[in-house]
Amino acid sequence: MKNFSIKPIGFIRSDLRERDEAPRQGVEGAPNACVEVLPSYRNALHRMQVGDEIIVITWLHRAQRDVLKVHPRGERSRPLRGVFSTRSPDRPNPLGLHRVKVLKMNSGRLWVGPIEAIDGTPVVDIKPVLGSADS
Amino acid sequence: MKNFSIKPIGFIRSDLRERDEAPRQGVEGAPNACVEVLPSYRNALHRMQVGDEIIVITWLHRAQRDVLKVHPRGERSRPLRGVFSTRSPDRPNPLGLHRVKVLKMNSGRLWVGPIEAIDGTPVVDIKPVLGSADS
Repeated sequence: MKNFSIKPIGFIRSDLRERDEAPRQGVEGAPNACVEVLPSYRNALHRMQVGDEIIVITWLHRAQRDVLKVHPRGERSRPLRGVFSTRSPDRPNPLGLHRVKVLKMNSGRLWVGPIEAIDGTPVVDIKPVLGSADS
Repeated sequence: MKNFSIKPIGFIRSDLRERDEAPRQGVEGAPNACVEVLPSYRNALHRMQVGDEIIVITWLHRAQRDVLKVHPRGERSRPLRGVFSTRSPDRPNPLGLHRVKVLKMNSGRLWVGPIEAIDGTPVVDIKPVLGSADS
Protein backbone atom coordinates (compact mmCIF):
# COMPACT_ATOMS: atom_id res chain seq x y z
CA MET A 1 0.00 0.00 0.00
CA LYS A 2 1.55 3.29 -1.09
CA ASN A 3 2.04 5.94 1.58
CA PHE A 4 2.21 9.69 1.00
CA SER A 5 4.53 12.29 2.43
CA ILE A 6 2.86 15.06 4.43
CA LYS A 7 4.95 18.10 5.33
CA PRO A 8 4.57 20.74 8.02
CA ILE A 9 3.49 24.11 6.63
CA GLY A 10 3.88 25.65 10.08
CA PHE A 11 3.77 25.00 13.80
CA ILE A 12 1.56 25.78 16.80
CA ARG A 13 3.08 28.15 19.36
CA SER A 14 1.14 27.74 22.61
CA ASP A 15 1.49 27.91 26.38
CA LEU A 16 0.20 24.31 26.46
CA ARG A 17 3.35 22.21 26.73
CA GLU A 18 2.16 18.71 27.55
CA ARG A 19 -0.51 16.48 26.15
CA ASP A 20 -1.73 15.71 29.70
CA GLU A 21 -2.60 19.33 30.39
CA ALA A 22 -4.40 19.91 27.07
CA PRO A 23 -8.20 19.99 27.14
CA ARG A 24 -9.90 17.36 24.99
CA GLN A 25 -11.48 19.97 22.73
CA GLY A 26 -10.82 23.64 22.08
CA VAL A 27 -14.19 24.66 23.48
CA GLU A 28 -13.32 23.07 26.84
CA GLY A 29 -11.15 25.89 28.18
CA ALA A 30 -8.26 25.80 25.73
CA PRO A 31 -6.13 28.92 25.30
CA ASN A 32 -5.56 31.01 22.23
CA ALA A 33 -2.36 30.23 20.38
CA CYS A 34 -0.32 31.24 17.37
CA VAL A 35 -0.05 29.38 14.07
CA GLU A 36 3.39 30.22 12.72
CA VAL A 37 3.39 29.56 8.98
CA LEU A 38 6.79 28.77 7.46
CA PRO A 39 8.15 31.45 5.10
CA SER A 40 7.88 29.28 2.00
CA TYR A 41 4.11 28.86 2.49
CA ARG A 42 3.14 32.40 3.48
CA ASN A 43 1.84 33.28 0.01
CA ALA A 44 -0.88 30.68 0.62
CA LEU A 45 -2.31 33.03 3.31
CA HIS A 46 -3.05 35.76 0.73
CA ARG A 47 -6.45 37.43 1.40
CA MET A 48 -6.99 35.70 4.74
CA GLN A 49 -8.43 38.24 7.19
CA VAL A 50 -8.94 38.84 10.88
CA GLY A 51 -12.35 37.46 11.77
CA ASP A 52 -12.21 34.58 9.28
CA GLU A 53 -13.39 31.20 10.57
CA ILE A 54 -10.86 28.58 9.60
CA ILE A 55 -10.08 24.91 10.13
CA VAL A 56 -6.50 24.31 11.20
CA ILE A 57 -5.38 20.75 10.47
CA THR A 58 -2.56 19.51 12.68
CA TRP A 59 -0.39 16.43 12.75
CA LEU A 60 -0.59 15.18 16.35
CA HIS A 61 3.03 14.09 16.52
CA ARG A 62 2.82 12.67 20.06
CA ALA A 63 -0.03 10.30 19.22
CA GLN A 64 0.14 6.51 18.98
CA ARG A 65 -0.60 5.30 15.47
CA ASP A 66 -1.23 1.62 16.23
CA VAL A 67 -4.34 2.15 18.38
CA LEU A 68 -7.68 1.15 16.80
CA LYS A 69 -10.02 1.26 19.83
CA VAL A 70 -10.07 3.56 22.85
CA HIS A 71 -12.14 4.36 25.90
CA PRO A 72 -13.71 7.74 24.97
CA ARG A 73 -11.93 10.63 26.68
CA GLY A 74 -9.63 8.10 28.34
CA GLU A 75 -12.33 7.15 30.86
CA ARG A 76 -12.08 3.39 31.44
CA SER A 77 -15.70 3.25 32.59
CA ARG A 78 -16.82 4.10 29.06
CA PRO A 79 -16.94 1.16 26.65
CA LEU A 80 -14.31 0.85 23.95
CA ARG A 81 -15.06 2.49 20.62
CA GLY A 82 -13.27 2.40 17.29
CA VAL A 83 -11.06 5.46 16.93
CA PHE A 84 -12.91 6.48 13.73
CA SER A 85 -15.98 7.16 15.88
CA THR A 86 -13.97 9.22 18.43
CA ARG A 87 -11.77 12.28 18.32
CA SER A 88 -8.91 10.47 20.03
CA PRO A 89 -5.48 11.75 18.94
CA ASP A 90 -4.37 8.11 18.87
CA ARG A 91 -5.34 6.79 15.41
CA PRO A 92 -3.63 5.49 12.25
CA ASN A 93 -3.05 8.98 10.81
CA PRO A 94 -3.02 11.41 13.74
CA LEU A 95 -4.70 14.38 12.07
CA GLY A 96 -6.34 16.99 14.32
CA LEU A 97 -9.14 19.30 13.15
CA HIS A 98 -9.48 22.61 14.98
CA ARG A 99 -12.19 25.07 14.05
CA VAL A 100 -11.02 28.52 15.17
CA LYS A 101 -11.34 32.21 14.43
CA VAL A 102 -8.46 34.38 13.21
CA LEU A 103 -7.96 36.95 16.00
CA LYS A 104 -4.86 38.76 14.72
CA MET A 105 -2.42 38.40 11.82
CA ASN A 106 1.14 39.59 11.47
CA SER A 107 3.17 38.45 8.45
CA GLY A 108 3.17 34.65 8.72
CA ARG A 109 1.65 34.47 12.22
CA LEU A 110 -2.04 33.86 12.87
CA TRP A 111 -3.37 34.21 16.38
CA VAL A 112 -6.30 31.82 16.69
CA GLY A 113 -8.33 30.20 19.38
CA PRO A 114 -9.42 28.49 21.38
CA ILE A 115 -7.20 25.57 20.38
CA GLU A 116 -6.17 22.50 22.37
CA ALA A 117 -3.02 21.60 20.39
CA ILE A 118 0.23 21.69 22.34
CA ASP A 119 3.27 23.84 21.60
CA GLY A 120 5.32 22.57 18.67
CA THR A 121 2.48 20.63 17.02
CA PRO A 122 3.01 20.61 13.23
CA VAL A 123 0.29 22.27 11.13
CA VAL A 124 -0.33 20.59 7.78
CA ASP A 125 -3.21 22.57 6.26
CA ILE A 126 -5.53 25.53 6.81
CA LYS A 127 -8.95 25.81 5.17
CA PRO A 128 -11.80 28.29 5.36
CA VAL A 129 -15.00 27.10 7.01
CA LEU A 130 -17.76 26.66 4.41
CA GLY A 131 -21.11 27.50 5.88
CA SER A 132 -23.07 24.93 3.97
CA ALA A 133 -20.60 22.07 4.07
CA ASP A 134 -19.20 22.34 7.59
CA SER A 135 -22.06 23.32 9.84
CA MET B 1 12.08 20.03 7.84
CA LYS B 2 10.88 16.57 8.79
CA ASN B 3 8.01 15.08 6.80
CA PHE B 4 5.57 12.46 8.03
CA SER B 5 4.19 9.39 6.32
CA ILE B 6 0.43 9.29 5.86
CA LYS B 7 -1.14 6.00 4.84
CA PRO B 8 -4.45 5.16 3.18
CA ILE B 9 -6.91 3.54 5.59
CA GLY B 10 -9.33 3.00 2.71
CA PHE B 11 -10.52 4.27 -0.66
CA ILE B 12 -13.51 6.05 -2.17
CA ARG B 13 -15.59 3.96 -4.57
CA SER B 14 -17.68 6.34 -6.67
CA ASP B 15 -19.24 6.78 -10.09
CA LEU B 16 -17.27 10.03 -10.37
CA ARG B 17 -14.21 9.10 -12.41
CA GLU B 18 -12.55 12.36 -13.35
CA ARG B 19 -11.66 15.47 -11.44
CA ASP B 20 -13.23 17.61 -14.19
CA GLU B 21 -16.65 16.09 -13.67
CA ALA B 22 -16.60 16.37 -9.84
CA PRO B 23 -18.66 19.15 -8.29
CA ARG B 24 -16.65 21.65 -6.23
CA GLN B 25 -18.41 20.67 -3.02
CA GLY B 26 -20.53 17.72 -1.96
CA VAL B 27 -23.62 19.87 -1.52
CA GLU B 28 -23.42 20.94 -5.18
CA GLY B 29 -24.96 17.84 -6.65
CA ALA B 30 -22.37 15.20 -5.77
CA PRO B 31 -23.43 11.55 -5.66
CA ASN B 32 -23.38 9.14 -2.76
CA ALA B 33 -20.36 6.88 -2.67
CA CYS B 34 -18.77 4.09 -0.70
CA VAL B 35 -15.83 4.38 1.67
CA GLU B 36 -14.11 1.00 1.57
CA VAL B 37 -12.00 0.64 4.71
CA LEU B 38 -9.01 -1.70 4.43
CA PRO B 39 -9.29 -4.93 6.46
CA SER B 40 -6.49 -4.00 8.87
CA TYR B 41 -8.33 -0.82 9.95
CA ARG B 42 -11.88 -2.16 10.26
CA ASN B 43 -11.70 -2.47 14.05
CA ALA B 44 -11.45 1.32 14.14
CA LEU B 45 -15.07 1.46 12.88
CA HIS B 46 -16.38 -0.26 16.04
CA ARG B 47 -19.65 1.35 17.25
CA MET B 48 -20.09 3.54 14.18
CA GLN B 49 -23.76 3.52 13.20
CA VAL B 50 -26.05 4.30 10.30
CA GLY B 51 -27.17 7.90 10.70
CA ASP B 52 -23.89 9.10 12.21
CA GLU B 53 -22.55 12.39 10.87
CA ILE B 54 -18.88 11.97 10.08
CA ILE B 55 -15.98 13.83 8.50
CA VAL B 56 -14.15 11.79 5.90
CA ILE B 57 -10.62 13.06 5.30
CA THR B 58 -9.20 12.24 1.90
CA TRP B 59 -5.81 12.60 0.24
CA LEU B 60 -6.56 14.30 -3.08
CA HIS B 61 -3.97 12.34 -5.01
CA ARG B 62 -4.53 14.13 -8.32
CA ALA B 63 -3.87 17.58 -6.88
CA GLN B 64 -0.85 19.82 -7.53
CA ARG B 65 1.17 20.39 -4.38
CA ASP B 66 3.25 23.36 -5.57
CA VAL B 67 0.34 25.78 -6.00
CA LEU B 68 0.06 28.56 -3.38
CA LYS B 69 -2.53 30.87 -5.03
CA VAL B 70 -5.55 30.08 -7.17
CA HIS B 71 -8.51 31.76 -8.80
CA PRO B 72 -11.43 30.59 -6.62
CA ARG B 73 -13.39 27.78 -8.26
CA GLY B 74 -11.03 28.06 -11.25
CA GLU B 75 -12.81 31.21 -12.48
CA ARG B 76 -10.16 33.51 -13.89
CA SER B 77 -12.39 36.56 -13.39
CA ARG B 78 -12.08 36.09 -9.62
CA PRO B 79 -8.92 37.55 -8.05
CA LEU B 80 -6.17 35.20 -6.87
CA ARG B 81 -6.38 33.99 -3.28
CA GLY B 82 -3.96 32.03 -1.15
CA VAL B 83 -4.94 28.36 -1.15
CA PHE B 84 -5.27 28.41 2.67
CA SER B 85 -8.26 30.70 2.24
CA THR B 86 -9.86 28.47 -0.41
CA ARG B 87 -10.97 24.83 -0.62
CA SER B 88 -8.89 24.25 -3.76
CA PRO B 89 -7.62 20.66 -3.98
CA ASP B 90 -4.30 22.13 -5.16
CA ARG B 91 -2.35 22.93 -1.96
CA PRO B 92 0.86 21.84 -0.20
CA ASN B 93 -0.83 18.88 1.54
CA PRO B 94 -3.87 17.93 -0.55
CA LEU B 95 -6.23 16.95 2.25
CA GLY B 96 -9.96 16.99 1.53
CA LEU B 97 -12.61 17.35 4.25
CA HIS B 98 -16.03 15.88 3.51
CA ARG B 99 -18.85 16.12 6.01
CA VAL B 100 -21.29 13.32 5.23
CA LYS B 101 -23.88 11.04 6.79
CA VAL B 102 -23.50 7.27 7.09
CA LEU B 103 -26.34 5.85 4.98
CA LYS B 104 -25.55 2.14 5.15
CA MET B 105 -22.79 -0.07 6.57
CA ASN B 106 -21.69 -3.54 5.61
CA SER B 107 -18.50 -4.94 7.16
CA GLY B 108 -15.81 -2.47 6.11
CA ARG B 109 -17.96 -0.52 3.65
CA LEU B 110 -19.67 2.75 4.54
CA TRP B 111 -22.13 4.27 2.10
CA VAL B 112 -21.98 8.02 2.56
CA GLY B 113 -22.97 11.13 0.76
CA PRO B 114 -23.12 13.43 -0.92
CA ILE B 115 -19.37 13.44 -1.59
CA GLU B 116 -17.44 15.04 -4.43
CA ALA B 117 -14.29 12.87 -4.22
CA ILE B 118 -13.51 10.79 -7.32
CA ASP B 119 -13.25 7.02 -7.51
CA GLY B 120 -9.99 5.70 -6.08
CA THR B 121 -9.30 8.68 -3.83
CA PRO B 122 -7.38 7.51 -0.75
CA VAL B 123 -9.12 8.02 2.60
CA VAL B 124 -6.74 8.85 5.46
CA ASP B 125 -9.05 9.41 8.45
CA ILE B 126 -12.67 9.36 9.59
CA LYS B 127 -13.94 11.39 12.57
CA PRO B 128 -17.33 11.96 14.14
CA VAL B 129 -18.81 15.45 13.82
CA LEU B 130 -18.80 17.21 17.21
CA GLY B 131 -21.79 19.48 17.52
CA SER B 132 -20.09 22.19 19.50
CA ALA B 133 -16.73 22.19 17.76
CA ASP B 134 -17.71 21.71 14.14
CA SER B 135 -20.89 23.67 13.65
